[in-house]
Amino acid sequence: MQGKRIFVLKANKARTDHKFHLKGLPSTAGRMDIVCRCISRALLYYGNKPRRDTVFYAVLLGPPQPPKTITIDGAEIEGLRSSEIAIAGLIRESLKCFKKGEEKVMKGIYVNQVGFEDLVSNFAEREYNLIYLHERGKDVREVYFSLNEVYVFILGDHIGLNKEDELLLEKLGVSMVSVGPKSLLGSHCIAIVQNELDRRFSSSRSSSL
Amino acid sequence: MQGKRIFVLKANKARTDHKFHLKGLPSTAGRMDIVCRCISRALLYYGNKPRRDTVFYAVLLGPPQPPKTITIDGAEIEGLRSSEIAIAGLIRESLKCFKKGEEKVMKGIYVNQVGFEDLVSNFAEREYNLIYLHERGKDVREVYFSLNEVYVFILGDHIGLNKEDELLLEKLGVSMVSVGPKSLLGSHCIAIVQNELDRRFSSSRSSSL
Repeated sequence: MQGKRIFVLKANKARTDHKFHLKGLPSTAGRMDIVCRCISRALLYYGNKPRRDTVFYAVLLGPPQPPKTITIDGAEIEGLRSSEIAIAGLIRESLKCFKKGEEKVMKGIYVNQVGFEDLVSNFAEREYNLIYLHERGKDVREVYFSLNEVYVFILGDHIGLNKEDELLLEKLGVSMVSVGPKSLLGSHCIAIVQNELDRRFSSSRSSSL
Repeated sequence: MQGKRIFVLKANKARTDHKFHLKGLPSTAGRMDIVCRCISRALLYYGNKPRRDTVFYAVLLGPPQPPKTITIDGAEIEGLRSSEIAIAGLIRESLKCFKKGEEKVMKGIYVNQVGFEDLVSNFAEREYNLIYLHERGKDVREVYFSLNEVYVFILGDHIGLNKEDELLLEKLGVSMVSVGPKSLLGSHCIAIVQNELDRRFSSSRSSSL
């Protein structure tokens, strides 16, 4: 895999089956609205054109059967739309279609039972560059990015990562990176990171600061 | 008014009464999902803390009674939440409460029948700095911003502004500004503009590039 951008969202309360209502995304679905917004921000350009260089992992940890990780691969996905309700419908369908041992539920969408620790540890083993998006990190504008590397941006939902997660990330040698001086919603951070990488690589320069 | 950030969204198809379903935001409500996302991006920090320095104007131009302009003032609003559905509920309530001659519908939310041309012309008369967010514009990172000025960022929805609107903006001396090398969704552009201004003014510097 070359020059990929990966986003990992730890969704502490998001439901792990399809039994949620679209009207209840911020409530009974366990802040599934945050998951949807982050997916939209990570994977779509204007006109709902997918970002072919980006993969999104949503680690769902709510009831009834955590963990479930939904992967949406921008290189394969078709017909993704930007509204929360459209994306929530897709997540619901994916969770409904999920069967053990068959990760692919539809074109570009995969579901498995991998948890947060296993997921990020696996990325570390593959020697991807792990970055924890956090307001105490180094300014993203001062971080070196190489066109040919894989970058994994990790972020939390409204609850965020806990001490245990942060110790794990520290052990894995994750860098902490901030998007600016204010504490922003996760989906805003994703939009800003994508913009920064677009700026670095839009003219196929190998890197620039 | 000192040091304000104003966003104006021209929502070409968004319904102008309260008779839309929350499930139909991207369809029968005339892409009201875009309006909601832009409001969330413009007005909220992490933890749903409102941006007190920002005012959002959504010019709704869909059926049955265009135009209607909804203003949400970050300095006054209370209890704004980031999910599309929550914001759509607020818009629906505002349109339902609207009565001619009484602009204020609830704390921080105003509705009137001012159209796009009158709204931006009024801002120009007040000598606010008008900026049209467009991919052909000057890079936002190279634009000078002053802490004590009012900036009005104008953007379109999925349809965008038409020739007539663009001629009007040209006549009013509007600057064109771009957020980066890729064509992005309006809500992403807002997140990036807010981040750029946060960076300039976070430590109360009067300006910096």
